[in-house]
Amino acid sequence: MQEYDFVHRMSVRDYECDLQGIVNNAVYQNYLEHVRHEYLRHVGINFAEYAARGIHFVVTRAELDYKLPLKAGDEFWVGLNMKRESRVRYAFYQDIYRATDDKLSIAGKIIGTALNERGRPEVPEEVAKLLGE
Amino acid sequence: MQEYDFVHRMSVRDYECDLQGIVNNAVYQNYLEHVRHEYLRHVGINFAEYAARGIHFVVTRAELDYKLPLKAGDEFWVGLNMKRESRVRYAFYQDIYRATDDKLSIAGKIIGTALNERGRPEVPEEVAKLLGE
Amino acid sequence: MQEYDFVHRMSVRDYECDLQGIVNNAVYQNYLEHVRHEYLRHVGINFAEYAARGIHFVVTRAELDYKLPLKAGDEFWVGLNMKRESRVRYAFYQDIYRATDDKLSIAGKIIGTALNERGRPEVPEEVAKLLGE
Amino acid sequence: MQEYDFVHRMSVRDYECDLQGIVNNAVYQNYLEHVRHEYLRHVGINFAEYAARGIHFVVTRAELDYKLPLKAGDEFWVGLNMKRESRVRYAFYQDIYRATDDKLSIAGKIIGTALNERGRPEVPEEVAKLLGE
Repeated sequence: MQEYDFVHRMSVRDYECDLQGIVNNAVYQNYLEHVRHEYLRHVGINFAEYAARGIHFVVTRAELDYKLPLKAGDEFWVGLNMKRESRVRYAFYQDIYRATDDKLSIAGKIIGTALNERGRPEVPEEVAKLLGE
Repeated sequence: MQEYDFVHRMSVRDYECDLQGIVNNAVYQNYLEHVRHEYLRHVGINFAEYAARGIHFVVTRAELDYKLPLKAGDEFWVGLNMKRESRVRYAFYQDIYRATDDKLSIAGKIIGTALNERGRPEVPEEVAKLLGE
Repeated sequence: MQEYDFVHRMSVRDYECDLQGIVNNAVYQNYLEHVRHEYLRHVGINFAEYAARGIHFVVTRAELDYKLPLKAGDEFWVGLNMKRESRVRYAFYQDIYRATDDKLSIAGKIIGTALNERGRPEVPEEVAKLLGE
Repeated sequence: MQEYDFVHRMSVRDYECDLQGIVNNAVYQNYLEHVRHEYLRHVGINFAEYAARGIHFVVTRAELDYKLPLKAGDEFWVGLNMKRESRVRYAFYQDIYRATDDKLSIAGKIIGTALNERGRPEVPEEVAKLLGE
């Protein structure tokens, strides 16, 4: 199994499942977002506080491979690795594993950046330092 | 502007926006799913009815490029082109445009298949015919 | 059938249904919120613009009677009547009807107020005028 | 502070906040549903399994008093008391408290019943026993 910079454990809530009885496609993006924000908070970056200051962390691209659907009551964990891709772009490799058997459910790659108050891509110095690359 | 097999018009609901004041990342997947299902219904395929019969249309991969965020009250339209990629895989190219200026907001490519009652990829003959490729 | 000040037509999106195959309880509140905001916009009040100015329209109480569940693909309409209940409180009577047979699905009563920039209940003069009571 | 039969701790996820920067009204119903289902599971009743067997636990009425909005990152806990109201109706008194100061955020009363396979209200004997009243 791969090594991750950050791991977060969660479980499926019944209302996140759709009429097929499995977690709806879009909900995995919610999970991934939540874990990215937990990771950011872990390194000292509060998403909501930056938003209030006019600095917006945004997703520019998302790739998700759906391997195994999660179901009602499933516990799962999300592993995250981050890699700076350019001066203003960060890649978050995020994989979701079902906890009972550690089988891969979702393999995701999310590219993000920060927008300054004029809406231009610019990662504040302090953020770059906290992200450590 | 590109030509599309199917176009569907929608508008942003306030509750779909997050604390940044823009439509949340995951919600665009909701929009794309809704429009795929409208397209399927348009060609004679009812997603919920097939689910009730044990045939599940599922997403195997999603790629989304986020170009321009939508905001509260924005009207938008979604253009869809479909292309069979293999015996059991279909690609849905789905682009979201802001209606006021036809600017591209999201460029998406969603790969889907159908799972039979044993959970194996298999596109029923009738579905393949209705999808017309 | 009752008469309404404002009527808005919508339809169920598949992702709004949960594993029981019916619209999830919480989603009806989304529908009601969306229609309240459409009504507000109709009388000249933009929810998001007021929020940006620090004036927040908030719900203080919600009562919902669930009569008939909506399902995937159902079309429905929402009827709304508004009544000022006090200097700072407005009641929105909102009923959801299935469009095919005009059967009542949800009967709702939502109490709302406005909070000023200090978080105190205060309905701006202009808002009170636009709400017409 | 009141005593509760069941208590469950959670925290706000950023995507649950709307453009006002607070948890969206409808999301509290998600929280309450999740905690009811956790409570049911705690006493031995699996919501999804019953749904798969054609027995549906449904909400017939919801009353929510909104006292204090939760914000991004807030931790909270939900206290639940259950009371049988009639042969087929159960009342769930559910209160949400902000964890930092134990201030009441939401006071809720949710009435629920079970529908049998013909859609008629009927609480299975085994369920009534597990609910203990």
